[in-house]
Amino acid sequence: MITRWKLTIEYKGTAYSGWQRQDGPLSVQQRIEEAIYAFCQQDLRIHVAGRTDAGVHARGQVAHFDLDYGERALDGYTIVQALNFHLRDSGIAILQAEAVSEDFHARFGATSKLYTYEILNRPAGPALEKDLVWHVWKPLDLELMRAASRHLLGNHDFTTFRAAQCQAKSPIRTLDRLDIEEQVLPQGRLIRVHAEARSFLHHQVRNMVGALVLVGESRWTPDDLRQALDAKDRTRGPATAPADGLYLVEVRYD
Amino acid sequence: MITRWKLTIEYKGTAYSGWQRQDGPLSVQQRIEEAIYAFCQQDLRIHVAGRTDAGVHARGQVAHFDLDYGERALDGYTIVQALNFHLRDSGIAILQAEAVSEDFHARFGATSKLYTYEILNRPAGPALEKDLVWHVWKPLDLELMRAASRHLLGNHDFTTFRAAQCQAKSPIRTLDRLDIEEQVLPQGRLIRVHAEARSFLHHQVRNMVGALVLVGESRWTPDDLRQALDAKDRTRGPATAPADGLYLVEVRYD
Repeated sequence: MITRWKLTIEYKGTAYSGWQRQDGPLSVQQRIEEAIYAFCQQDLRIHVAGRTDAGVHARGQVAHFDLDYGERALDGYTIVQALNFHLRDSGIAILQAEAVSEDFHARFGATSKLYTYEILNRPAGPALEKDLVWHVWKPLDLELMRAASRHLLGNHDFTTFRAAQCQAKSPIRTLDRLDIEEQVLPQGRLIRVHAEARSFLHHQVRNMVGALVLVGESRWTPDDLRQALDAKDRTRGPATAPADGLYLVEVRYD
Repeated sequence: MITRWKLTIEYKGTAYSGWQRQDGPLSVQQRIEEAIYAFCQQDLRIHVAGRTDAGVHARGQVAHFDLDYGERALDGYTIVQALNFHLRDSGIAILQAEAVSEDFHARFGATSKLYTYEILNRPAGPALEKDLVWHVWKPLDLELMRAASRHLLGNHDFTTFRAAQCQAKSPIRTLDRLDIEEQVLPQGRLIRVHAEARSFLHHQVRNMVGALVLVGESRWTPDDLRQALDAKDRTRGPATAPADGLYLVEVRYD
């Protein structure tokens, strides 16, 4: 009997070439598929909700795969324990495995994705959060960033914030949430940008964060951001924020 | 003119033999003293508030040193920037440098220290927080842990929770705060134990956390913990919790 399994996955992207399997550098996908092979000696392909880039992290990536385990009973807890055994010291952890119906699809069934981007805003670089945050030393004006973020909310042509290599057919997306949260530290602070949408263009979150930081540093006004958006021109966009600060936090399904 | 400088320091303890300089393995102290030498070509000794063990981290360690910089003006920001330049990629960051009076002493002037111990409580080990938390897979009962923690609060003979190699003259300490805080994660949770006192015995926080986890796993009752404390006998104590989860968060002065 074939069962479709939904995996919820945490990973540190720093050591990987990104999610997607490719020739050469090691990908998160390949590492997990090798763990599945070590567990059941089957060479299976897993299907993912969001293909993250090199260096991007996940707290709640979702993927599915189909496993024919014969007549033997298998539960989610056993899969989690077995895969994590084979993934030890990989920077990848399977948080949950659930049997789902055969019409579940990690990518095509996703109704929204939540990304969080973390910025360490203080003079000193990160000692504890190396590779896990973007370090911005200049103090950021959160009120200006929040004012600018309102121009990005809703349905827009996001051509300005799209990677040159983006393969999506349409540059139109609907951004349902763009919140900026502040956690005050003994020195400086941690700023989290939460972005939620049904789907994103390639580099869209990192480019939006790049623009918001320009505004927070007073190098752009909120209106400069609005004009850049309206221009629908990638050359009017900001530099892409580093991968280090980006986390795929949650994928939702109906 | 000699100026006494107070440093506030963040570090990841994983790669170090602990705070204190010693023959052989690299210590945090040695690494910072080398950075001071690189900055001003003076071989200075720094004095620390709390000598942390190997693998223990700090978000707000405090140390002081005396610097004769001749007639030249020097401000804290310059020291921070210069030391952090020489400490890049070391897992050590100077958060602040302040000129203080000559009677300030990082160790003897400290009126209280706050340590936080972080426990990742879920079936899967940490992918993102490797070396930065203690992974406890069995679900912990926080109400039992809180009940047990109340036995430790206040003034006690902490012999049961003291390392064999502890050099303090008296095993009596006053624990002013022992709070247990929970952060719910998409899968599992992060548990933080906050412990505050004027001073601690060697391994005291890690031994108290070891006992609280035994209670949370229902291997000890809160009353077992009380009896162990009353026995004033290290052999009745728990296993020491790993260094990975422990952070020196703040040192306070009058």
